[in-house]
Amino acid sequence: QFSSDVRTVTLIPGDGIGPEISAAVQQIFTTANVPITWEEVDVTPVKGPDGKFGIPPAAIESVNRNGIGLKGPLMTPVGKGHRSLNLAIRKEFSLYANVRPCRSMEGYETLYKDVDVVTIRENTEGEYSGIEHEIVDGVVQSIKLITEPASRRVAEYAFQYARNNGRSKVTAVHKANIMRMSDGLFLRCCREAAEKNPDIRFEEKYLDTVCLNMVQDPSQYDVLVMPNLYGDILSDLCAGLVGGLGLTPSGNIGEGGAVFESVHGTAPDIAGQDKANPTALLLSAVMMLRFMELHNHAAVIEKACFETIKEGNFRTADLGGSAKCSEFTGEICRKIEEMS
Amino acid sequence: QFSSDVRTVTLIPGDGIGPEISAAVQQIFTTANVPITWEEVDVTPVKGPDGKFGIPPAAIESVNRNGIGLKGPLMTPVGKGHRSLNLAIRKEFSLYANVRPCRSMEGYETLYKDVDVVTIRENTEGEYSGIEHEIVDGVVQSIKLITEPASRRVAEYAFQYARNNGRSKVTAVHKANIMRMSDGLFLRCCREAAEKNPDIRFEEKYLDTVCLNMVQDPSQYDVLVMPNLYGDILSDLCAGLVGGLGLTPSGNIGEGGAVFESVHGTAPDIAGQDKANPTALLLSAVMMLRFMELHNHAAVIEKACFETIKEGNFRTADLGGSAKCSEFTGEICRKIEEMS
Ligand SMILES: CC(C)[C@H](C(=O)O)[C@@H](O)C(=O)O
Ligand SMILES: CC(C)[C@H](C(=O)O)[C@@H](O)C(=O)O
Repeated sequence: QFSSDVRTVTLIPGDGIGPEISAAVQQIFTTANVPITWEEVDVTPVKGPDGKFGIPPAAIESVNRNGIGLKGPLMTPVGKGHRSLNLAIRKEFSLYANVRPCRSMEGYETLYKDVDVVTIRENTEGEYSGIEHEIVDGVVQSIKLITEPASRRVAEYAFQYARNNGRSKVTAVHKANIMRMSDGLFLRCCREAAEKNPDIRFEEKYLDTVCLNMVQDPSQYDVLVMPNLYGDILSDLCAGLVGGLGLTPSGNIGEGGAVFESVHGTAPDIAGQDKANPTALLLSAVMMLRFMELHNHAAVIEKACFETIKEGNFRTADLGGSAKCSEFTGEICRKIEEMS
Repeated sequence: QFSSDVRTVTLIPGDGIGPEISAAVQQIFTTANVPITWEEVDVTPVKGPDGKFGIPPAAIESVNRNGIGLKGPLMTPVGKGHRSLNLAIRKEFSLYANVRPCRSMEGYETLYKDVDVVTIRENTEGEYSGIEHEIVDGVVQSIKLITEPASRRVAEYAFQYARNNGRSKVTAVHKANIMRMSDGLFLRCCREAAEKNPDIRFEEKYLDTVCLNMVQDPSQYDVLVMPNLYGDILSDLCAGLVGGLGLTPSGNIGEGGAVFESVHGTAPDIAGQDKANPTALLLSAVMMLRFMELHNHAAVIEKACFETIKEGNFRTADLGGSAKCSEFTGEICRKIEEMS
């Protein structure tokens, strides 16, 4: 499927700092001679024939055609009834697994050393079903929807991911002591996947316990798989351990394709000022290259990025420095050229 | 309501290490001449006239009569259909607010300094409604139930708590960007409570953001109020920052009464060996004393406990020492005697 021919990747630059960090990634990819071409699309919602706003057909077609996309941060349009565009994209393309590796970065010290965990989040249902009702005045229910196919799919993906990335343990994170049926079903699917993958260790933990353990000693965890909302929480917690959303990549994996994205905000206060840190989007793009089996390009770019951060001479403002986005990017490109 | 006459407090010693840490608290209270008498009850579920297992009527009557209880850890009975007894107690007495202060303890170093946050958790509904259905084979829904009365009650309690404890800010923690109606209702109730309490600052934050911030810089938070499950998660995360559930107290506040409890497990592996750390239960009992307006007794006991931990000569095994529960307790009693 993924040959070394030049492939086309859909690029959704995003809002706020999105365009400048996307440009940084493009520059770095060009320097590294990555054999892809970009197809830039606009996802600003348009009114469809049914009168509802949605992702423009051209953007949908592009992702469907290419099967792979890179996405900067998107603003949620203001106004009632607009749901997050970030979520709309995950749903539109059935991107069922959200993968977020969190690793300590040399040169960026936090309270924690040697963090290396990966959260794998069910990305299509659960608490994000969007089904809610007001039963009577002042009484509201939201429905958490857990299905066997979606749970099985993400559980199996977690074991596959662990194996393909040389990892040895998968922890299923749940509250099946409280939500016995829904989290119970999710957990059962994880257990079944564990049985089919006996080479990978498996354990089950309560979400609250994982949060407590994670802030005390993250080294006890490896790959973690969980329902949608728990993944939202735990992936942010883990990102916090290693420096925040500006440094951590994210990939949304589907059956027909995958979209990689930085999950930080659009930072409108610094947009257009050449101050943004492109690291999260760049590392997401590196994940994308690995997904496309462009391992050598991934390794070169990642190395250049890590070394630039480690050396610390070109730190952007979020990392306490005063380097511009273009200077940081330029240094990464210089290192890539040096390596080739 | 709470005079300085001798009052009766219901004691639920609990399972595993429950009895020994309860005995430690009783010994300390006796030494400090706390003007209460204990009424010990057994909450092991009994079969009712309807054939269902439930808390024994005598235990229920005791808590209802006394309006105040102290509770050690309880095992959840094994077997399908048994729900957590800890939860049953919260529901039985409509203990609508679960209050968990997390403060750094001198003498017990963690990665974090000067943590001082209080999570206030809605304790009766939300994701803990217990309402679940299998719609069709392999499709399960769990219902998160949010009501205006319960949300308003806990929101107002949070502001009251902040004021009574000299705190200056309440943060409402939510995912109303996703669960617009349910978390939206909860948030609206918090906003209304904020308007009625303009002397306390108010802010709103997404749960994922709070988790990320909390592990990076907990000092930005003060009192946090949130729906049931979020409180379960965040209270454990915060406990992790200061050393775990063995050191943090908890109180369940209701309209007709309050039950204070340690929220760690029953630790069956060390039960009966005089090795357990009674700190979480003791500090819960101190919260109870403040609730009963026995402020002087609370202050003396708390001081003796904190100093014993700070000096570090009587550390129980969980804190890396080899002191027995009775030795730690004895030292606290010695300090109390010295103070009086
Ligand atoms: C933007 C928001 C809707 C989203 C989520 O809740 O999933 C974000 O927090 C994330 O983790 O990607
Ligand atoms: C024991 C368990 C049911 C309980 C909960 O989920 O609330 C516990 O984690 C707690 O926080 O008291």
